[in-house]
Amino acid sequence: MLVDRVAQLHAAYARAIDDDRLEQWPALFTDPCLYKITSAENYRRGLPAGLVYADSRGMLEDRVTALREANIYERQAYRHLVGLPALDAGADGAIRAETPFLVVRVMRDGTMDLFATGRYMDVMVDEDGTLRFRERVVVCDSSRVDTLLAIPL
Amino acid sequence: MLVDRVAQLHAAYARAIDDDRLEQWPALFTDPCLYKITSAENYRRGLPAGLVYADSRGMLEDRVTALREANIYERQAYRHLVGLPALDAGADGAIRAETPFLVVRVMRDGTMDLFATGRYMDVMVDEDGTLRFRERVVVCDSSRVDTLLAIPL
Amino acid sequence: MLVDRVAQLHAAYARAIDDDRLEQWPALFTDPCLYKITSAENYRRGLPAGLVYADSRGMLEDRVTALREANIYERQAYRHLVGLPALDAGADGAIRAETPFLVVRVMRDGTMDLFATGRYMDVMVDEDGTLRFRERVVVCDSSRVDTLLAIPL
Repeated sequence: MLVDRVAQLHAAYARAIDDDRLEQWPALFTDPCLYKITSAENYRRGLPAGLVYADSRGMLEDRVTALREANIYERQAYRHLVGLPALDAGADGAIRAETPFLVVRVMRDGTMDLFATGRYMDVMVDEDGTLRFRERVVVCDSSRVDTLLAIPL
Repeated sequence: MLVDRVAQLHAAYARAIDDDRLEQWPALFTDPCLYKITSAENYRRGLPAGLVYADSRGMLEDRVTALREANIYERQAYRHLVGLPALDAGADGAIRAETPFLVVRVMRDGTMDLFATGRYMDVMVDEDGTLRFRERVVVCDSSRVDTLLAIPL
Repeated sequence: MLVDRVAQLHAAYARAIDDDRLEQWPALFTDPCLYKITSAENYRRGLPAGLVYADSRGMLEDRVTALREANIYERQAYRHLVGLPALDAGADGAIRAETPFLVVRVMRDGTMDLFATGRYMDVMVDEDGTLRFRERVVVCDSSRVDTLLAIPL
């Protein structure tokens, strides 16, 4: 079932981040790919993503390396809650989906806060039996984004 | 698959509200229909819905018009996270489901808060191949509801 | 479909707690079973669960009795939002899944807070056509847990 395969890919993505297995995150994308984080306002206006932009697995891997050097995961953890994907299978064999998400941040001292909400605008393709993101555009609802934002969403 | 059709209807509902396409929201209901927002306490006691009540598409459309005139969406946005529906297909061909939800409100300045949680008590029917809500009763967990509540939940 | 059966079991579990029908909660487990609540840190280190531990339906029923005597549900309610399960069907016929969750607490006066986030590490088995939890390990993200924590998660 298509919807189940999409759900499993979404779950694998969230687990790679939340379980601190970031090194497995780039392999969920095709190479080349498109990954960016933007705000709803910039997205609506067609403005370029201000926050994060990557168009290859190499760039995603560089980001993971930077996060490891910054020891971000020593100080905080994340929990993604991903909603129901609205699917749209295109004529080109690619699967398009829009999926809402919510991320809670858990600090080292145990405090939790609502970190981000938004929607994933995805294009997924099958590569030899494995579903991967050809594009994942993360559209955050809030235009006020933590300036220290470095982790993937 | 039934559960997938239900999930797609739920996703379409949430997107119409969260993407500020309210004009598409009434068409997700049959006509006549039943739409109301109530609290868990009123629901348990069998008291009438205090907050919102509509029994036709026309009433839903009136509500959208009122929201547009009040410019609610200029000041705030919403993000629905909808959980797994517990399904119950009735003998009359209608589908009953209870589905938990959570709504985050995002203010214009970027602040986010937990706006509402609760469950949808739905009756859905197939109309010429399109699944629609014949009833959607929104039962909010909190009895303290924002008195300015005007947007659909 | 396997994923649908798992989703329905998850939904039944959350509803039993959130709708204050705790008496129906133990029957969602096999007997004997394993139910525990632990923190991500203890889980990672392989330390024993500090919070809650039960290995039979009888122990789960005792917990429900204790909650009823403490009148916990007079003062607060809960809302579970459960994410997409990442499934892994084992060779022994048991189904393993990891599923993220978020729980909101709603106090009697209407205030809401983010109570817990984490993931369920489940082993489910089919017993005469009914899917049940043989194991449910609740791994909370935060190590700071409400010391009054008594309700099931």
